[in-house]
Amino acid sequence: MRSSSCRLLVIILCCLLGLVQISLASKVRHFRWEVGYMFWSPDCVENVVMGINGQFPGPTIRAKAGDTIVVHLTNKLHTEGVVIHWHGIRQFETPWADGTASISQCVINPEETFVYRFKVDKAGTYFYHGHYGMQRSAGLYGSLIVDVADGEKDPFHYDGEFSLLLSDWWHKNVHDQAVGLSSNPFRWIGEPQSILINGRGQYNCSLAAHVSNTSSSLCSLRGDAQCAPHVLHVQPNKTYRLRIASTTSLSSLNLAIGHHKMILVEADGNYIKPVAVDNIDIYSGESYSVLFTTDQNPSTNYWISATVRGRHPQTPPGLTILNYHPNSPSIPTSAPPVSPAWDDYGYSKSFSNKIIALQGSPKPPIRRDRQIILLNTQNKINGFNKWSINNISLVLPATPYLGSIKFGLKGAFDHQGPPDNFSRNYDIMKPPMNPNSTQGSGVYTIHFNSIVDVILQNANAMAANVSEIHPWHLHGHDFWVLGYGEGKFSEKDAKRLNLKNPPLRNTVVIFPYGWTAIRFVADNPGVWAFHCHIEPHLHMGMGVIFSEAVERIKKIPEEAIACGLTGKMLMHNHGG
Amino acid sequence: MRSSSCRLLVIILCCLLGLVQISLASKVRHFRWEVGYMFWSPDCVENVVMGINGQFPGPTIRAKAGDTIVVHLTNKLHTEGVVIHWHGIRQFETPWADGTASISQCVINPEETFVYRFKVDKAGTYFYHGHYGMQRSAGLYGSLIVDVADGEKDPFHYDGEFSLLLSDWWHKNVHDQAVGLSSNPFRWIGEPQSILINGRGQYNCSLAAHVSNTSSSLCSLRGDAQCAPHVLHVQPNKTYRLRIASTTSLSSLNLAIGHHKMILVEADGNYIKPVAVDNIDIYSGESYSVLFTTDQNPSTNYWISATVRGRHPQTPPGLTILNYHPNSPSIPTSAPPVSPAWDDYGYSKSFSNKIIALQGSPKPPIRRDRQIILLNTQNKINGFNKWSINNISLVLPATPYLGSIKFGLKGAFDHQGPPDNFSRNYDIMKPPMNPNSTQGSGVYTIHFNSIVDVILQNANAMAANVSEIHPWHLHGHDFWVLGYGEGKFSEKDAKRLNLKNPPLRNTVVIFPYGWTAIRFVADNPGVWAFHCHIEPHLHMGMGVIFSEAVERIKKIPEEAIACGLTGKMLMHNHGG
Repeated sequence: MRSSSCRLLVIILCCLLGLVQISLASKVRHFRWEVGYMFWSPDCVENVVMGINGQFPGPTIRAKAGDTIVVHLTNKLHTEGVVIHWHGIRQFETPWADGTASISQCVINPEETFVYRFKVDKAGTYFYHGHYGMQRSAGLYGSLIVDVADGEKDPFHYDGEFSLLLSDWWHKNVHDQAVGLSSNPFRWIGEPQSILINGRGQYNCSLAAHVSNTSSSLCSLRGDAQCAPHVLHVQPNKTYRLRIASTTSLSSLNLAIGHHKMILVEADGNYIKPVAVDNIDIYSGESYSVLFTTDQNPSTNYWISATVRGRHPQTPPGLTILNYHPNSPSIPTSAPPVSPAWDDYGYSKSFSNKIIALQGSPKPPIRRDRQIILLNTQNKINGFNKWSINNISLVLPATPYLGSIKFGLKGAFDHQGPPDNFSRNYDIMKPPMNPNSTQGSGVYTIHFNSIVDVILQNANAMAANVSEIHPWHLHGHDFWVLGYGEGKFSEKDAKRLNLKNPPLRNTVVIFPYGWTAIRFVADNPGVWAFHCHIEPHLHMGMGVIFSEAVERIKKIPEEAIACGLTGKMLMHNHGG
Repeated sequence: MRSSSCRLLVIILCCLLGLVQISLASKVRHFRWEVGYMFWSPDCVENVVMGINGQFPGPTIRAKAGDTIVVHLTNKLHTEGVVIHWHGIRQFETPWADGTASISQCVINPEETFVYRFKVDKAGTYFYHGHYGMQRSAGLYGSLIVDVADGEKDPFHYDGEFSLLLSDWWHKNVHDQAVGLSSNPFRWIGEPQSILINGRGQYNCSLAAHVSNTSSSLCSLRGDAQCAPHVLHVQPNKTYRLRIASTTSLSSLNLAIGHHKMILVEADGNYIKPVAVDNIDIYSGESYSVLFTTDQNPSTNYWISATVRGRHPQTPPGLTILNYHPNSPSIPTSAPPVSPAWDDYGYSKSFSNKIIALQGSPKPPIRRDRQIILLNTQNKINGFNKWSINNISLVLPATPYLGSIKFGLKGAFDHQGPPDNFSRNYDIMKPPMNPNSTQGSGVYTIHFNSIVDVILQNANAMAANVSEIHPWHLHGHDFWVLGYGEGKFSEKDAKRLNLKNPPLRNTVVIFPYGWTAIRFVADNPGVWAFHCHIEPHLHMGMGVIFSEAVERIKKIPEEAIACGLTGKMLMHNHGG
């Protein structure tokens, strides 16, 4: 009896020690945030931005892999709801914390608080942003950096690191932008007034006017201005990790560091095979890490530039200063780096194809269970301009899908799923014969653990000889990028996909008139948006919904779904 | 037995006939409305307005006394909630239909529909408007006209009628206005760019430039422009009823018809003793009917003008054309009418005192049960500019009072009621010694059928020698206006109140450094806002809440309170 009690004690002690160890290794990190509008001058022109705790961009979340993040988000807007999406975080076992209005949760109304609680399971460079209306474009974004867990190591060395969050900025407020996009006649938002790096840009002037071949005037601004450029302070002959994420509303960008090479090592929170590049293309929704070594003439500073690509640029590059110690953080005397021509798609494709998985990364399953081909078209619906996927333009319901699907509510949305393919006769090289499409709920039902291939098929827009770039972002998953191709995807293409070393990502671009093939394993019960990350394109319907094994989701917190028909249901079922 | 069945049959038939008669006499009038933003040029400058069914101002509701109005209101805004308040309708037995966000109901979220169902029990000139954030200022308003019931007659004759809804208009959107008001340093909204009559004004030009003593240029606009002046087509030698309501955000106005006298016959949906006037002062939240006779030279047209009073005018008058048949509806050749000087408060007080009850109107009870004296002060709270009532600046809770009070929920708001009076030592003629106040829920609990006097006491604002006009509006009630006075209200004043023929109103003004006394019978269970009708002043906390016999309210529709803590409660109590 004594020995058995003793054994029990040892077991209890071991358990307790185990618990202590877990709590030492992974932390719960609490944040109390208030979202509100405030006056701010992101590009030296005063405007109203959506900030968090009085900051723009919002505070950076820094955590370690395995940590739990708890954000108590209070809405301090006057009349608008709000949600925040944690871009790149897969939300395993917490699909209600994905922060997508009408999809994963009800909006948080003014003066209400919602608690986002989720695990950051994988080191990497992420960010967060509003996912309701066009609130991301209003400035609701910030960085989310996950370091490797204690005792773990990145597969590369660096002496220091920096983080750059890229965005684009309009002087017209997003409410008016949204009205224009939803009007007939249609009003496009136009090109941004400024490119921002960490929320800082300079409208109608150039920091580098004195060394650039530009007609702009030199910016005259104080070093403590809200629009003063961000400065990266470096020591000579060190290696730095530069984390770069793009939350642009519209712009595809190219980032370069004057006179410095870069080695690309991470994409969307996944290690990739290191590759030396002169500059990087980065599309909205993507993130990268690059390493660079401060091996250039240390007596001068250098420019880091973010230049518009893929659309005829009417916006000057965003600029940041690389400041070598012990120089003053003054304006570099060299010209900013030169980026490839905006329409050099060959360059862009070559860049995208350079990104392959680091050896030892998870490989895709060899066979797919289902193939969904998504034709991207520009359309008209009752005279309104829209984007459609397989002829259905996404409209979001008042009741979030997560609840209405989980509880099988009728009438919450259009249950007729969109097709898995489009007409084989469709000519993607020409404007659509009949540009009219319909609106729908866009829900694909995906079986648990099935292996899904999605072929994103680009096409000609409504105007002749126009096909645009669209960066597609998947929630709840990383996917393997199996390849890019020209023209209409064919069975021949299907046989040539890269199953050897495809990179894992959460965002991937389709090029004009091309296709992109991805594969993912449906191992994460939830309702996940898959959509073009260009804010006005999503607003115009460019997305679909993956309803994935929702029957396996256990208890959805009622705060997430206490609205619309699920709210009604909860009021009538409870305790009954 | 036969005779008793026969009697029963007769009774049933009589009942049925009675029902038929009721249904003939009073109608249920259904409206399906969608609230949305749209491009519009209210004052010839394109902007974004909040409209209903594509109209600005919203559609006019026309009904007969005793009718039931049913408005199916769908929110088509992108990210904002919405509610509509039916200004002047007392909502007997339907306090949840009063349309006040956080007070009588939860906001209607995007893509949701709420059904307002209420009786219009009394003929009169009313209007409706947004009552969430500053959405009224965004253009969410329209007219609500209740005619006398069939078989009833107005106590005056007229040959035709017109309705003018007055408002003021800013080019800066209300989101930015609200941010400015809520910022430290404070940013005032400034004077409006234009005065609108039925949603039409002309910025930076004058329709009457050729006949006015003005430096403005003549407006050049097409007759079918959205900003073209409203035209009243009249026959000579007829008597017309002109209904006038003001839903201005800020401006006190004076309305006059060139060369024509008016007889004031109705105020806020109550008949008053007819009185001849040259022009009328009208404050935000008020409505009037005047009669005028087309007895002037019929070979010309005349101006109707709405001129800013009470603030140094920086906005030209709003103009409308009185068009005598068979003249073309062209610009009148006479000068617009002259209004009293903006700061001629003697004139304003004299006008207000002319309004007394029509003989035979309901008289006030002789004695009061309770007296609440409300000191109106301008204050600072943590450096932010506010307005306070007895040192409490109103902040609205996330959970509407109606539900949280009805169900006795703790924690929904600050239950410590504000005081019934202010310090007798307070010097209303000087800036406050200590301008700091606190925020609170401002709830006065009022007993059923008690007779309540409210003394609104004006005071000096924070700057020396400034005291402003505030039009106070009471929800759920008409009240008797017992009198206006100068300086601090005293017991002597209390003895001189007009109990003989005070007019019934729902909105009343306090003049600079003066007081206004009102009386009402608390015979309408509900939670009723009582507040300054100047939109930015309410936004800055200038209001209180009357919680009136809430225990007598029967079943509140759950749609009205399915948010915040009452939403939670409904989810947990139901069926339990």
